Amino acid sequence: MASPVDPIRPTDADARALARSLIDDARFAALGVIEPASGAPMVTRVAIARDARGLPMTLVSDLSQHTKALRSNPACSLLLGEPGPRGDPLMHPRLTLQCRAVFVAPAGTEHGALRARYLAQHPKAKLYIDFGDFRLIRFDVHSGFLNGGFGKAFNLTAKDLTGAS
Amino acid sequence: MASPVDPIRPTDADARALARSLIDDARFAALGVIEPASGAPMVTRVAIARDARGLPMTLVSDLSQHTKALRSNPACSLLLGEPGPRGDPLMHPRLTLQCRAVFVAPAGTEHGALRARYLAQHPKAKLYIDFGDFRLIRFDVHSGFLNGGFGKAFNLTAKDLTGAS
Repeated sequence: MASPVDPIRPTDADARALARSLIDDARFAALGVIEPASGAPMVTRVAIARDARGLPMTLVSDLSQHTKALRSNPACSLLLGEPGPRGDPLMHPRLTLQCRAVFVAPAGTEHGALRARYLAQHPKAKLYIDFGDFRLIRFDVHSGFLNGGFGKAFNLTAKDLTGAS
Repeated sequence: MASPVDPIRPTDADARALARSLIDDARFAALGVIEPASGAPMVTRVAIARDARGLPMTLVSDLSQHTKALRSNPACSLLLGEPGPRGDPLMHPRLTLQCRAVFVAPAGTEHGALRARYLAQHPKAKLYIDFGDFRLIRFDVHSGFLNGGFGKAFNLTAKDLTGAS
């Protein structure tokens, strides 16, 4: 006996809506980067907010390994959608986003609006958001992979996630 | 104002015990792999059990992207330790493990014992563990990074995690 040969289903409105809700509900995510010294993947936790397009953004410290890694190589991946304390965690929907990290220039035109959006979603970050080593990063998403539970997988485009044409 | 210059503290018995508890309590983890086509990191969710050394193991399908990626490049990373539904997720302890994935040969000497251990920790997996496309993987851990909350970070060796000399 075996699993279905192709677990990927055609992307439909329900899949898009589920992916959208996983981004909208995320307070944090697992961030995958490339470790510069080894070339190996490295996964850490970051806080997540949403920019004006509804795409993920975060706030990181220059002292963190993931920040140094993203300055060396902006290719990264986010895993969103956390299981609750009970039930089978592999049945809980989750979304992988393949992204490019874009550092938001502190003196740039978009910084003020993104800082305000981040603080509206993470009010306690006001304690450290203006520290000299903290940076806002927004994630340019180029593709996504939604796993809605056993045998319910979907490939997504950036357009599926933003509704942009 | 800025964060402390070096956020890494000397590893002590409390840090080792916290890392150990995060592995022991994990039902699942975020797995970071290298996507073969792009060379980019990719993060997905996998179930986690513990082998006889107390190190993480998982069960994956050959149809999954992470399995294909690990066959191409076994370098990977696991993020363990899930925040609860309330509180600041960045204050919740989490553990990054830098690993090499080792596929457990179905006909090999260690398969039976690892299969039994996996099922003891994930009883519902009896429904699919013997499907032809499913594989047990154990993770050889070569280093770890423990983040116990803001300003409480520790580098760990494999010895710190297993107690082995």
